[in-house]
Amino acid sequence: MYVFTYKKSDIMSENHVIHTMLNHKSVRKYKNEPPTQEEIEQIVRAGQQAPFVSQLYSVLLSRNREKHPFKAPLMFTICVDIQKMEKIMDKKGWKMVTNDLSLLLFGIQDAAYMAQNMVTAGESMGIGSVFLGRAIYIAESIKKEYQLPDRVFPLVQLAMGYPDEDEPPRPRYPLDFVLFENKYPELTDDLIDKAVSMMDEGYLQQDYYRKLNAKIKLSGDKEDRFTYDDYSWTEHISRKWGQWYDSIETPLKQLETCGFHIVTDEED
Amino acid sequence: MYVFTYKKSDIMSENHVIHTMLNHKSVRKYKNEPPTQEEIEQIVRAGQQAPFVSQLYSVLLSRNREKHPFKAPLMFTICVDIQKMEKIMDKKGWKMVTNDLSLLLFGIQDAAYMAQNMVTAGESMGIGSVFLGRAIYIAESIKKEYQLPDRVFPLVQLAMGYPDEDEPPRPRYPLDFVLFENKYPELTDDLIDKAVSMMDEGYLQQDYYRKLNAKIKLSGDKEDRFTYDDYSWTEHISRKWGQWYDSIETPLKQLETCGFHIVTDEED
Repeated sequence: MYVFTYKKSDIMSENHVIHTMLNHKSVRKYKNEPPTQEEIEQIVRAGQQAPFVSQLYSVLLSRNREKHPFKAPLMFTICVDIQKMEKIMDKKGWKMVTNDLSLLLFGIQDAAYMAQNMVTAGESMGIGSVFLGRAIYIAESIKKEYQLPDRVFPLVQLAMGYPDEDEPPRPRYPLDFVLFENKYPELTDDLIDKAVSMMDEGYLQQDYYRKLNAKIKLSGDKEDRFTYDDYSWTEHISRKWGQWYDSIETPLKQLETCGFHIVTDEED
Repeated sequence: MYVFTYKKSDIMSENHVIHTMLNHKSVRKYKNEPPTQEEIEQIVRAGQQAPFVSQLYSVLLSRNREKHPFKAPLMFTICVDIQKMEKIMDKKGWKMVTNDLSLLLFGIQDAAYMAQNMVTAGESMGIGSVFLGRAIYIAESIKKEYQLPDRVFPLVQLAMGYPDEDEPPRPRYPLDFVLFENKYPELTDDLIDKAVSMMDEGYLQQDYYRKLNAKIKLSGDKEDRFTYDDYSWTEHISRKWGQWYDSIETPLKQLETCGFHIVTDEED
């Protein structure tokens, strides 16, 4: 059995930044006490300083914990924001000419870099968080709730607060399944099996899915032969991407609702 | 004139993580000495531990500094990688059913979160970097160079090495142009003017564009009335997004080349 451990040189790092990152875990149980206004501003400021300086994002904040997943004290919604850039350009007599797909490819990066800094900044102050990927599917309702103008697209939500649990960092692929020098290698059975083992044995060791009661049901009348003794990451992720049939119309419609058109080039 | 400074509470932070993030700056001049193999692995491992665990990315590495922008000792190309997930699912008898637009929206986040951790991890060890946004436009040539299989899309490149310059952190929007509580506000002239001033005065103070000789030329026969005494961020960014006419066909074609189809839903 592959035992999931960090090399001592990783986890014992005296570099506080590396240590904070290697120690990352999503938090799903929060204390009542909310982070202070100063902490919130510190976290967002650290996010802002991330690279890529078109600054094509905005951050929405809600402190209405009763409405948040896991009753997290804070909920940030990180949006791709093209409106602000267009307003600034308008003031200077310019008009945006770049197509919406390119803008999204850059804007999502801008927003994601800032979001990741917010996660790490929070953890450095003892404040935990979890990303919620649902935003792109509920963009229309987020738009209504926060009264978003056109050209602002909610990319991801980040629930945040002081952790009321102490979970270990989660497994990741082995380095040689991620980092490739000079040439993308053939993914041999050996490489894949090693990655699968590292993920599956790692999650089983932590009893992750049983604790969360997070098994994804099999659709139709397929018999489920997995119990929480052998249900692990690759089974979970396969059921997710292998059953979550989501037509391209779904994200396209949410993008359209927010004023982004990536199907036809209206400028032609 | 708006003077661009950090609040003392920001920059003097004793929190090494926050300090590292607020002190971030892109590096365009590198020492010859390359980071060690151990440092490289530490940086990528810190990147891997970023949230979102579909791990839909791969990282390509080149150490051929003669071929890199700014002759940086290292060049990472961070890719959205759906192939690995599909190979794992295939081994377990599953088939991907989600559409490529949804996969990209999640995969870009996966890749970007890891990329941003790599930037911060590097800086914590004194290793600087700069993102190169060109990857999505030269995906086809990157695919050839690294012999990428289908379903792998180069999102962004990250040049890295020990800095041979010491530039200050760059200006960012004021916090009240970025963080909105409960409701997206009307962007009044006041709010926009304040953001424009903060960016423009900040970059002028640093003499940024003159030092880089980075003025973007006006297309056609427009007269350029700006000198490096008044050419700053909002003028630069307006010229970029206001002149860089890039048809949606350009990024669509690069995505197609890499095996991503976001125009029609082929599964319907």
